[in-house]
Amino acid sequence: MKLTILGCYAATPRTLTNPTAQVFEIRNHMFLIDCGEGTQVQLRKNKVKFSRINHIFISHLHGDHFFGLPGLISTFRLLGRKKELHIYGPKGIKEAITLLLKLGDSWTNYPLKFHELTSLEPRLIFEDEKVSVRTVPLDHRVYTNGFLFKEKLAERKLNVEAVAKYKIDKAYFQNIKKGNNVILEDGRSIPNTELSFDPPKPKSYAFCSDTGYNPEIVPLIKNIDVLYHESTFLDSDSKLSIKTKHATAKEAAEIAEMAAVGQLILGHYSTRYKSIEPFKSEAQAIFKNVELANDGKVFEF
Amino acid sequence: MKLTILGCYAATPRTLTNPTAQVFEIRNHMFLIDCGEGTQVQLRKNKVKFSRINHIFISHLHGDHFFGLPGLISTFRLLGRKKELHIYGPKGIKEAITLLLKLGDSWTNYPLKFHELTSLEPRLIFEDEKVSVRTVPLDHRVYTNGFLFKEKLAERKLNVEAVAKYKIDKAYFQNIKKGNNVILEDGRSIPNTELSFDPPKPKSYAFCSDTGYNPEIVPLIKNIDVLYHESTFLDSDSKLSIKTKHATAKEAAEIAEMAAVGQLILGHYSTRYKSIEPFKSEAQAIFKNVELANDGKVFEF
Repeated sequence: MKLTILGCYAATPRTLTNPTAQVFEIRNHMFLIDCGEGTQVQLRKNKVKFSRINHIFISHLHGDHFFGLPGLISTFRLLGRKKELHIYGPKGIKEAITLLLKLGDSWTNYPLKFHELTSLEPRLIFEDEKVSVRTVPLDHRVYTNGFLFKEKLAERKLNVEAVAKYKIDKAYFQNIKKGNNVILEDGRSIPNTELSFDPPKPKSYAFCSDTGYNPEIVPLIKNIDVLYHESTFLDSDSKLSIKTKHATAKEAAEIAEMAAVGQLILGHYSTRYKSIEPFKSEAQAIFKNVELANDGKVFEF
Repeated sequence: MKLTILGCYAATPRTLTNPTAQVFEIRNHMFLIDCGEGTQVQLRKNKVKFSRINHIFISHLHGDHFFGLPGLISTFRLLGRKKELHIYGPKGIKEAITLLLKLGDSWTNYPLKFHELTSLEPRLIFEDEKVSVRTVPLDHRVYTNGFLFKEKLAERKLNVEAVAKYKIDKAYFQNIKKGNNVILEDGRSIPNTELSFDPPKPKSYAFCSDTGYNPEIVPLIKNIDVLYHESTFLDSDSKLSIKTKHATAKEAAEIAEMAAVGQLILGHYSTRYKSIEPFKSEAQAIFKNVELANDGKVFEF
């Protein structure tokens, strides 16, 4: 898993800070999560190949999370895209994008598929043989979802020495990887555990922004490897966080602690703070494994 | 008059080039013309005071000319704006902006006044005691207007020595500035030309982008001081310019020559060209006084 932070600051884009957008890579997928104004320039700066993005997940319809989407969709057209583009986001996103394209008489040459979200319950919104994506309902001023990305259990790994020892034919390898035992020609049954190794533990990542402190998400993200949780404010500004339905670094850490996640990444900082270091120390008083997101930063898990 | 180029490249925003936006200052007005994605960051980079912008003119509804507008409107709100903001642009712009604000439940705290344009004829769209703004209908793939900004004739300047010589009372000064003669107490009539100087010649600027070669605009911009005319392509790519209803540097120069403008500024370059210098030489073969726009460049007239 590889996470590239394109932007992780709240509110307006500034000269050196960008609104929310990130690229999450898992098992050959390259998912774009949120798309604040300027995301396409951030994609270029971070040398992300536009053509590899086929799925875009939009948490909510505040400008700092999706005002870069119309421009990105137009740029895909100019780049000659042919492949389907899937967009997952709150109901209304289709009407907005369609209207903007209609006004510019700029329909895409490629299929644009909208998956509009309305449920207040967690939902499976994408699935293939390798990965699943579920919504994590959040508590913000408008309808908002986080997204939970989970690898599926991979095939078991062939124990090359063991299959050589038993002189097992290649034709059986696929069966072994699926976990089956093998019966030799002499009738002996060789247990699969002797012929293969456990696959790596499937990894998981959840993006939770924007949201107020919301322990209801804890069961949904229990034991995941990495949690990106917004922390717009420090605890000293908790009045503001309550009023605006954002979280503090302390609250983000409490969620991470309760969910027993592997690692917490903080982001969506208010630009009122001169330094983001205090977010880390505030969170680490509660949950140890904390990292700070920053524009252009890459996390590999 | 002062013109700050925020962006002058065609199509998609890139790391070092920005889509169309410019700030035009004339007689204490600060007009924003077009608003491609990233304009608010360009405003910050160029240290433009957001609160001085009260009128935004949008030429047409292609993304590279207005996808920065929703974000700028939202930022004005975050900055606590109270003053009216006037937006002039093609019909449909109000519906688009209103829908985006509605979806984000982010209404402005300040009055947002839309002036939707539909006429195919030139129209007076703004006027006060100092400045007028008229549309210049252009020929592009969608409904598009250029904008012609004209200073009004200022008051005449008092000839301080002359009024002292005739011992004329202050009470008459306003009348003199308006061009009236003065009758002294002894009955003599002093002609205004003796008591005042001509005001400076009113200046004028036209923004014409995007458009194909369109000589119909010549009478509308005849003898103006400065013309910004798009030149997306060089003459060697004239087939592309015809197909996309854009102009070449040569065509922009022909328009400038026919309209006998004082100065031509070229912009809206396709990013296919490695250098923009050939635009200047191509245009100068036809019209001498050519300048190249570039992001961050400031012209003072």
